[in-house]
Amino acid sequence: MSTRLDEARAAGATPDQLGVGMRVSLHPHCDDFVDVILGALADTAAAGLTDDLVLETDEVSTYVGARTAPAEQRLAAYLTALVAAASRRSDGGHVVAHVLLSRGCPGEVSCDLAVTGLPHVAPVAIARTGLRAAAQWSLYPLLDGGSAGGEHMAHIEAAIAHAQRRGTATSPAHYATTLVGDLADVVATAVDAWAEVGAVVPHVVTHLTISLGSPSPAEA
Amino acid sequence: MSTRLDEARAAGATPDQLGVGMRVSLHPHCDDFVDVILGALADTAAAGLTDDLVLETDEVSTYVGARTAPAEQRLAAYLTALVAAASRRSDGGHVVAHVLLSRGCPGEVSCDLAVTGLPHVAPVAIARTGLRAAAQWSLYPLLDGGSAGGEHMAHIEAAIAHAQRRGTATSPAHYATTLVGDLADVVATAVDAWAEVGAVVPHVVTHLTISLGSPSPAEA
Repeated sequence: MSTRLDEARAAGATPDQLGVGMRVSLHPHCDDFVDVILGALADTAAAGLTDDLVLETDEVSTYVGARTAPAEQRLAAYLTALVAAASRRSDGGHVVAHVLLSRGCPGEVSCDLAVTGLPHVAPVAIARTGLRAAAQWSLYPLLDGGSAGGEHMAHIEAAIAHAQRRGTATSPAHYATTLVGDLADVVATAVDAWAEVGAVVPHVVTHLTISLGSPSPAEA
Repeated sequence: MSTRLDEARAAGATPDQLGVGMRVSLHPHCDDFVDVILGALADTAAAGLTDDLVLETDEVSTYVGARTAPAEQRLAAYLTALVAAASRRSDGGHVVAHVLLSRGCPGEVSCDLAVTGLPHVAPVAIARTGLRAAAQWSLYPLLDGGSAGGEHMAHIEAAIAHAQRRGTATSPAHYATTLVGDLADVVATAVDAWAEVGAVVPHVVTHLTISLGSPSPAEA
């Protein structure tokens, strides 16, 4: 453990040293949800999107680890393709994905990565899907009291302002920011903000609930 | 804004001053998901569980605010009843709920509540449902660098240890802790941990993905 953390203190910590990855769960609202999920997983594998990722599925969600750069690009491309495939396979029906993206806590116990040496990551580039998505997004810079890193809300406010300039952030909601746009742009907004804060704050988590094909606001 | 924060600095900040509430989305994996969701919402209203809550539904999720004490008890009772009703109305089929519980950021912009004056909340008491739930749970104490409050991972580790003593926490997963047990115990574990950290750290968020009736781990 300490060896990995020491290594991560050097400039340019790798995705593996930082523990860059996500948990994702996919929720097609239809009777044949098993076929839709397994089909979407098969589609992403057939497209080669899982080649450099580590996937572990359990009863609640799937862990997706990205051990090599460009980790954020791989995760964003996989997530976008997975949700798009599920939407297509359910004929545009209601599909929701819940995503937790994490970085900076590789051992899941200790998070004392030094602030120096955190990588600056290029924004992800994901082709538009033609699918409209609405999402609720929250970002958690996990500072320690007494550490450097500033105020946690300052990082969050800067990320929201950036998302507003991108055009994906619409209205603030209680505890989350609503993102609306092409699925690829919604995913990229959250992934880029998470990586951007991760250049300053070692341990950063972001959650994203992505909804496609919802029949109406009243039934969300 | 500053008036509310000043008031909250006094001992015994109220749920309204702290912004105690949650966002919840409900995902029945069936063709008649609209009927299941609307039915479950109607069931909780008929049982009087929404009387002291503020509900606002949008395209992605429903905000549930608890303005008066015992806020945590009201939220846990509502959440448990809502998920149980959805499970019953889908005949024990696969139902997932995603929940974000938040406290300490009432204005959604500034979180400078003083650490003094945070309430110590009694554990919630929720009757068992007879429904087995599996969940993935993550807890985010949102400290500021330079503030008091200790190390964020120390709060998380203490909460996980407590959940293990309760018997709901099973295995650690990447980025989350797996909770298994009666739906009521799973909900109570997350709500109590969140409120407990909230007695020390003003701004605390917890996320919970609750799964009932999953056909198999491979299809999660």
